[in-house]
Amino acid sequence: MTTAPTATSADTARYVLVQQFYARQMQALDDCRFEEYAATFTEDGTFQHTPGTEPARTREGITAELHAFHEQRFRDDPVQRRHYFNQIVLDPLPDGTFASTVYALIVRTRLGERPEVWPSCVVRDVLVIDGDRVLTRSRTVGYDQLADEQ
Amino acid sequence: MTTAPTATSADTARYVLVQQFYARQMQALDDCRFEEYAATFTEDGTFQHTPGTEPARTREGITAELHAFHEQRFRDDPVQRRHYFNQIVLDPLPDGTFASTVYALIVRTRLGERPEVWPSCVVRDVLVIDGDRVLTRSRTVGYDQLADEQ
Amino acid sequence: MTTAPTATSADTARYVLVQQFYARQMQALDDCRFEEYAATFTEDGTFQHTPGTEPARTREGITAELHAFHEQRFRDDPVQRRHYFNQIVLDPLPDGTFASTVYALIVRTRLGERPEVWPSCVVRDVLVIDGDRVLTRSRTVGYDQLADEQ
Repeated sequence: MTTAPTATSADTARYVLVQQFYARQMQALDDCRFEEYAATFTEDGTFQHTPGTEPARTREGITAELHAFHEQRFRDDPVQRRHYFNQIVLDPLPDGTFASTVYALIVRTRLGERPEVWPSCVVRDVLVIDGDRVLTRSRTVGYDQLADEQ
Repeated sequence: MTTAPTATSADTARYVLVQQFYARQMQALDDCRFEEYAATFTEDGTFQHTPGTEPARTREGITAELHAFHEQRFRDDPVQRRHYFNQIVLDPLPDGTFASTVYALIVRTRLGERPEVWPSCVVRDVLVIDGDRVLTRSRTVGYDQLADEQ
Repeated sequence: MTTAPTATSADTARYVLVQQFYARQMQALDDCRFEEYAATFTEDGTFQHTPGTEPARTREGITAELHAFHEQRFRDDPVQRRHYFNQIVLDPLPDGTFASTVYALIVRTRLGERPEVWPSCVVRDVLVIDGDRVLTRSRTVGYDQLADEQ
């Protein structure tokens, strides 16, 4: 009734590479290592973390945007954020890149307090996977509490 | 002191196939693509999402049940649900199928509001894995706030 | 533009082994199978679950500590806990072991109530991976609501 998996080792390896890529990428973001986070994008990568705004462009642009965002949002209210990724769906695109659709739940904790769990998001990435190197070419974040993004 | 893993590529591939299967299955459910969700079950599949009730049976039955459930529960109170799966334990069964025991945390968000995180569940599946094809033969959902299910 | 992954099957298999290891380890802990949990540590393993305290040592010591901790904390206030692990980063260490840095979100549910989500943690393990056998040599848990642990 059952036979052994026939998934090529390349398919298996690719999915696991993407899991590891996201783990390092999001630990870098949550630790505020913004240059390291930006380096996980392609040189011309784009990152739209707020719907309706222009995405940040290029590694330099993404780094600058993250510094500005954190300064504005968290300087007077420091929190430890954790991005929980789940249910990664990887679909090949015609140009050899991959569409990645991932749930992201953000957990934020202030000193001495219990964590707040919000927002609940869907991250839509285009990933360039070259050998063992994974890079994000574009990232768009949709928020479940907003309507316009499905 | 350490040696390379000897896990067969079949063992590794199978676990990764199951991760990918769950990702697509639950994105289908959360996007209310119920026919697509039902098609991830075997033809004679069963799905018990509420303890103490009869499980839905067959793909048609599962589709109908989900339409009815969503109509009843969410028509007047629409929410975006997200099913977070975690800690997948896969055990081979004597007939060649696999028992899969998975944590599932459900996150639900209303427009303009912060997410609610509930319920906390354990999903107990029997999976039929034939080559690269994974199907759920039976699914039973246990809820942590209820006592009878351990 | 893209080429197939070149990750060795050993690298891929190792990451997937660690995922499976954590799934079984934490289901054992959450089901209060403390001897089974302790057996996932090396004979001389250490487990520090509370910052500023001495870690529990050896499998016997870890088992005893967990029984005492649960008796003290949960005897009069039983909860079902679930440990959600995410974003596993695995780094080889010079002695052949692996540093594993993992997010851990704990979900606790009382009978008849909605789950509470806390605390938000980072687990820092040293893992001994010998063939397909994974064991925790040391575990240190850091809590996001405390400052001293980054």
